[in-house]
Amino acid sequence: MAVPGYVYGGLLASLIDCHGTGSASAAAGRARPDEAPFRFVTASLHVDYLRPTPIDAELDVRGVIKELMEKKVVVSATVSANGKECAKGEVVAVRMPENMDRCSSSRFDKKRCGCGWKRPNITEHPAATATQRPGDVFPPTLPQ
Amino acid sequence: MAVPGYVYGGLLASLIDCHGTGSASAAAGRARPDEAPFRFVTASLHVDYLRPTPIDAELDVRGVIKELMEKKVVVSATVSANGKECAKGEVVAVRMPENMDRCSSSRFDKKRCGCGWKRPNITEHPAATATQRPGDVFPPTLPQ
Repeated sequence: MAVPGYVYGGLLASLIDCHGTGSASAAAGRARPDEAPFRFVTASLHVDYLRPTPIDAELDVRGVIKELMEKKVVVSATVSANGKECAKGEVVAVRMPENMDRCSSSRFDKKRCGCGWKRPNITEHPAATATQRPGDVFPPTLPQ
Repeated sequence: MAVPGYVYGGLLASLIDCHGTGSASAAAGRARPDEAPFRFVTASLHVDYLRPTPIDAELDVRGVIKELMEKKVVVSATVSANGKECAKGEVVAVRMPENMDRCSSSRFDKKRCGCGWKRPNITEHPAATATQRPGDVFPPTLPQ
């Protein structure tokens, strides 16, 4: 927190950022279920703070895929507390450049990858919990 | 970090966020030097990630006041490493609502304030280090 009693805005931005890149990876992975999914990184992040977020409440983070391209996914997300939206944002996530991953791959299937996740265990990865709402199309179709 | 070797984007967003609200408070305080400056909170935050930010470099955060109103300040900021801009962003900061501060004031001059800062020690507060660049007008003039 920065102001006593409320969640720090940078943390809320981080929640939206993480949820955005995780959801992007999950959506891209579902569109190509025969391949190891790519990791995504943030190209841009926007957050609107709608009201102070109480620090003693459970936070509910929801993401929706707005745009799905092969190398770019746009995810909108909200953070709510006690049933009220406290922040909403948008993440433009792009496929992680190959040379950025010290594990020598931008995919999740390397043992030395920071997240330690391997493709067969998709349900164990946080990205697998990306929100699916009525109206979402899963698995989505990537442009060929 | 999220990707080994690089600074986590949420932390970069937090740096820009903090620098933005701190700079906003400093600018507003300089415009009204006879008053205890108000605290500012973030209304919106936008960050563009230009290149991966190496985790082993010193980060240079620079903010510039773009717009100064009585209750709203817009600050642009950059984060650089090794002389290269890695992220740039914009913070729309607004004066903290009175009822948000559990210290019973939205000003910095309360002992129980989370930042512990009192007006006489302005040079000790992080906001006092807000960047001043050629072309900036300090103290700026607030609309009457």
